[in-house]
Amino acid sequence: MSQDKLVSDFRNYVKKLVSYNQALAVLGWDLRTKAPRKGAHARSEVIGVLSGEQFKLATSREYEEYLTALSEPDRLASLDPVTRKTVLEGKKEFERSKKLPPEKYQEFVITTTQAETMWEDARKNNDFASFRPYLEKIVKLQLEFIDYWGHSGVKYDTLLDMYEPGMTTAQLDEMFGKLREKTVPLVQAIAESPNKPDTGFLTRPYDIARQEAFSRYVLEKIGYDFAAGRIDISAHPFCTSFAPGDVRITTKYDPNDFRVAFFSCTHEAGHAIYEQNINPDLFGTLLCDGTSMGIHESQSRFWENIVCRSLPFWQHFFGDLAKQFPDQLAGVQAEDFYRAVNYVQPSLIRIEADEVTYNLHIMIRYEIEKGLINETMEVGDLPRIWNEKMKEYLGVVPPNDADGVLQDVHWSGGSFGYFPTYSLGNVYAAQFAHAMRQQISGFDELIAGGEFAPIRTWLKENIHQWGKMKSPSELVHDITGEAMNADYLVQYLEKKVKDVYQL
Amino acid sequence: MSQDKLVSDFRNYVKKLVSYNQALAVLGWDLRTKAPRKGAHARSEVIGVLSGEQFKLATSREYEEYLTALSEPDRLASLDPVTRKTVLEGKKEFERSKKLPPEKYQEFVITTTQAETMWEDARKNNDFASFRPYLEKIVKLQLEFIDYWGHSGVKYDTLLDMYEPGMTTAQLDEMFGKLREKTVPLVQAIAESPNKPDTGFLTRPYDIARQEAFSRYVLEKIGYDFAAGRIDISAHPFCTSFAPGDVRITTKYDPNDFRVAFFSCTHEAGHAIYEQNINPDLFGTLLCDGTSMGIHESQSRFWENIVCRSLPFWQHFFGDLAKQFPDQLAGVQAEDFYRAVNYVQPSLIRIEADEVTYNLHIMIRYEIEKGLINETMEVGDLPRIWNEKMKEYLGVVPPNDADGVLQDVHWSGGSFGYFPTYSLGNVYAAQFAHAMRQQISGFDELIAGGEFAPIRTWLKENIHQWGKMKSPSELVHDITGEAMNADYLVQYLEKKVKDVYQL
Repeated sequence: MSQDKLVSDFRNYVKKLVSYNQALAVLGWDLRTKAPRKGAHARSEVIGVLSGEQFKLATSREYEEYLTALSEPDRLASLDPVTRKTVLEGKKEFERSKKLPPEKYQEFVITTTQAETMWEDARKNNDFASFRPYLEKIVKLQLEFIDYWGHSGVKYDTLLDMYEPGMTTAQLDEMFGKLREKTVPLVQAIAESPNKPDTGFLTRPYDIARQEAFSRYVLEKIGYDFAAGRIDISAHPFCTSFAPGDVRITTKYDPNDFRVAFFSCTHEAGHAIYEQNINPDLFGTLLCDGTSMGIHESQSRFWENIVCRSLPFWQHFFGDLAKQFPDQLAGVQAEDFYRAVNYVQPSLIRIEADEVTYNLHIMIRYEIEKGLINETMEVGDLPRIWNEKMKEYLGVVPPNDADGVLQDVHWSGGSFGYFPTYSLGNVYAAQFAHAMRQQISGFDELIAGGEFAPIRTWLKENIHQWGKMKSPSELVHDITGEAMNADYLVQYLEKKVKDVYQL
Repeated sequence: MSQDKLVSDFRNYVKKLVSYNQALAVLGWDLRTKAPRKGAHARSEVIGVLSGEQFKLATSREYEEYLTALSEPDRLASLDPVTRKTVLEGKKEFERSKKLPPEKYQEFVITTTQAETMWEDARKNNDFASFRPYLEKIVKLQLEFIDYWGHSGVKYDTLLDMYEPGMTTAQLDEMFGKLREKTVPLVQAIAESPNKPDTGFLTRPYDIARQEAFSRYVLEKIGYDFAAGRIDISAHPFCTSFAPGDVRITTKYDPNDFRVAFFSCTHEAGHAIYEQNINPDLFGTLLCDGTSMGIHESQSRFWENIVCRSLPFWQHFFGDLAKQFPDQLAGVQAEDFYRAVNYVQPSLIRIEADEVTYNLHIMIRYEIEKGLINETMEVGDLPRIWNEKMKEYLGVVPPNDADGVLQDVHWSGGSFGYFPTYSLGNVYAAQFAHAMRQQISGFDELIAGGEFAPIRTWLKENIHQWGKMKSPSELVHDITGEAMNADYLVQYLEKKVKDVYQL
């Protein structure tokens, strides 16, 4: 077969594979936002059938032959960059699937499906003991998977690589070390500050239609393209991309808390703006996606926190907001509002945590995952360990396991190695923002002027357009000239806390 | 292979085939109701890929082997009824696909794709001549298809059978003969009647949110299950079923005409109630669908016209409507409203036609299709023939071809044999309503009381539950004890016109 023909057949095969992913994404979006209750069962069957077909394509002999032929070194070197990177990405995914015995993967699917149900009940009944055997089984399976996949000395690194290619425990230990060292004292200083922001006006009745209108207004300004997306309502906010021309977000409204919808919209829009700005030439390859969970999260956190929780942002938008909610915000100034949405308070629940304490929640999960996967901790000890770490880092102890070790769904689904990407997102975001401030003149003034085009262009050129063409570490190096570095997040948080709490 | 295994493999294969259809239906619904503009191109590629996969499954050697093995007479007789009927239905569809040479079908797809674009332009520019060669090509291809498929003496019957299994030109000639004989004088009598209803109050400003609320209220009452469906907005109203538990309808709103959304909602809900009430055991087979286009249309027309344009209906609902629109309907009585929504007026455009003249529009198309396919008419003569028939049946002549022979999309898409099912729907609906009046005591009183459960139960038991288990003619025979008979529609229309126009 000529190389041209081989490449074109391979590209068509990948395009077919991607089409299944897109169809499944649409079926999933519809199920979570629009499908009537009685349609859920039939829908899950259709999703099951198409997922099975997709899996067959992703693990077929034909696919393997393309990947083997094209990754022969001389040939690989002669390919155009997009095809080459698609081959490498495809090979990595293919081997990950192929190395697991199908019956082992099947066992994992069955175990996690049961475990998610058990976790829901266990959380409801505050009963860690009933969930414990499932979690033990999942950890055992993760360890078996790592044996099949192999590891380079540190087992947990193999899991990290699934969500954040190239990331290592060594790097994360350093990152969390800095965050612990600098953030824990910060939280203590805040606790002792007499200058706590007033937040009462955030939890008054906020009309939902007006909340929606304000969110849409802001999202349009920051650059979420509604001709290539839409906002709907779902139980848990999410972003889903079918193609750069169709990236949708969801939110939920709390009629008595302004923050819930607004910050989830700006967060999900951050993810969506990333996907909308990937080079459309990558559509139909394996590269039309964010390059890692951490880089993706950096984009959502950048808009949600670094921009939309900044003083210049509210200097620009507070007037518009106050016009929509004159009674709720009577007597409130832009700076009061800025301080209120940056209130810091150690709390029990990760998803409700503020920008400063958030990483401490993640750190606890990271240390536990590392302990379990590197076999220095046992599942049975988790409730005790959890509470000890909460006490140490956050100064609060959950009254029960439901609001402690049982609060997150991730482990019941077998997602070990995912949590750290939340903090990586914060770290990357601050590091990128630091670079932006050096490269875009008048960064704060632009935000205060409601002028986001230069920032968007910077993000598109430096991050978004590349999709998976660059790895996370390549991106960080190319943009900042150094490796991932938590110092910028620490500086950012110290500066903001000093400002908000007048330390 | 054991018969049990054969049946179970076949059923799984069909389920997979049906899953693709459902996924494609969801992708199509989303494209027409929710997808952002910039997502349309990528979506059409995904639909193309999945349609191709679906076509492969529907014409595969494996499928053929199942169908051949299971349709061996002794084996067929021993199958359970649902599997047997699925085999017969599958064999029919399979042979229809297999008998066409792929390159001939390809030619048809390309021709109709071009023709639809050409038709849009031709209609816009009132230029039949530019569309004529495409229509000639399509007619030629239809004749070639009939040669491949075979026919039993009348070529047009082969096309009719695709939309209305078992229907023949002989039956339709008789049906349209009656309709012409009885409806044309009716239209003339109406024209001469001095008692024309006032319709001015129908075209006042009607708030869209209130229109929607009223439609939803009525649809819930007549039995559209919103836990198994939903209403959205689209350019052209339609109904789409993913499963009996998920049957969605769309509508469009005219802020200055109450009729547009309300009667499209009740029409589409008629289709949807049919699909929602098919026996769920048929889900995942080829039988979980309306049994023909004509029977499907009978359900939409039954609710839209026979129920929701009846006097008892408005005796019940007019009060609710007038409460929502007190200014628009000031001084109007239920009977005035009933008369207004039954206004009869010969007009140029089929989709705007009233209940009486509608079938005359269809008759013109039927006679032309029959003439083209049985080769007694030529495409070049259509503009003249169209106008002559309009003059003869409706007494009006289009000022141009755009509002005449070019008004419908159907022929550009190659859908010959489809139009007659619209009138069949009206005929079946009246025939079923006649049977219902004999079998359900106090039919009008139930409607006047807003009590639709007995009607719904009758429809479910006699029509809906069967899906494709019964052919259209079996259904009509089982319910009415006779064959399709246009007398009931004629009687129904005569009675209503007499009432509305006080003849």
